[in-house]
Amino acid sequence: MLKDIEIVAPLDIEKRSFEIITEELGDRKFPKEWENIIKRVIHTTADFEYADNLYISETAVESGINALKSGCTIVTDTTMVMSGINKRVLGSLGGDVKCFIADEDIKEEAKAKGITRSAVAIDKASRDKNIKIYAVGNAPTALIRLYELIEKGEMEKPQLVVGVPVGFVNVVESKELFVNSDIPCIIARGRKGGSNVGASIINALLYTVSENRRD
Amino acid sequence: MLKDIEIVAPLDIEKRSFEIITEELGDRKFPKEWENIIKRVIHTTADFEYADNLYISETAVESGINALKSGCTIVTDTTMVMSGINKRVLGSLGGDVKCFIADEDIKEEAKAKGITRSAVAIDKASRDKNIKIYAVGNAPTALIRLYELIEKGEMEKPQLVVGVPVGFVNVVESKELFVNSDIPCIIARGRKGGSNVGASIINALLYTVSENRRD
Repeated sequence: MLKDIEIVAPLDIEKRSFEIITEELGDRKFPKEWENIIKRVIHTTADFEYADNLYISETAVESGINALKSGCTIVTDTTMVMSGINKRVLGSLGGDVKCFIADEDIKEEAKAKGITRSAVAIDKASRDKNIKIYAVGNAPTALIRLYELIEKGEMEKPQLVVGVPVGFVNVVESKELFVNSDIPCIIARGRKGGSNVGASIINALLYTVSENRRD
Repeated sequence: MLKDIEIVAPLDIEKRSFEIITEELGDRKFPKEWENIIKRVIHTTADFEYADNLYISETAVESGINALKSGCTIVTDTTMVMSGINKRVLGSLGGDVKCFIADEDIKEEAKAKGITRSAVAIDKASRDKNIKIYAVGNAPTALIRLYELIEKGEMEKPQLVVGVPVGFVNVVESKELFVNSDIPCIIARGRKGGSNVGASIINALLYTVSENRRD
């Protein structure tokens, strides 16, 4: 069986993968600034549905890249999204990433209020002025709370919202809130998404800013 | 738009999600011990293809559960898989999880040998006698190396291999090595998989062992 394995040098694996993705996308063309994002998400999921599912608002890429270039903080709803983001490249731009979900104050407040920790964590994030990018890969309740705070004017509009929760309860609806808003956003429409998708969208933007990303 | 959002209490969201999954699976029936795993992976991905893609070898569930009950160490190929595993439940069973990918010695050895860090990390893991479960969510090179070491008799057969790398280069082939072996394994056949899938399979087993999983 091992004879079926093709020998590919480590640094060439990703290159080869992207070639296969490009080939299988065939005649489909995307605006240049969307292409990196769409292909990286397909690379992360092996799911070509994302060629149709990803909604990228008009100003999202430019706005997100400007935020990254300015050395902003990214907040994520789960530690998995945080874990998947390339911290070396983010750090080289002066940025960092935070996730409040496991903080003791979040747990207590969520229990007291009977709402999800993800929603309470968004409240906490909204008070941190250096957070310019929200990456939500799991919790629709986080996305809904974020939308409420922005719409009520209780926080500044973020420079980018990556909204890719996955699942069955309020997931589609939470994402459509952003699709129908003027908030710069990248959204995986429908039920699909996930922490890996969230991290890969952030990484696609990071790699667009910084070509020197290998360690 | 917010009126479209259904109010569901935090603890009920997962329950409701599983009800929807069960409903949409319709007449499909799975052996009881597979059902938790298949449904949790669908819950994590919103991708019903996993009802067909998951290969669970005959002894995999029993063997994996025995390992977890004995308080073993799980090793993962990426920090994302590690991040997604419920450490509270794992810890309550006396187990823990390790990931060697970012270790300095791994980086140096991979560079010197011109192979992936993921493969070198498997060599390191194979020398740790308390590691009974391998969870590979990303790197086919890790899965291939693991297969080689087991087949050559250079390490004991693990009690469970969760093999769910995702992608385009050697991914399908690396997984078929295990499908065609007598190693207890849970494999996402085809190109799909990912760190989220890897973590959710481990969590499904953990939740089977421990019902008391809420924090």
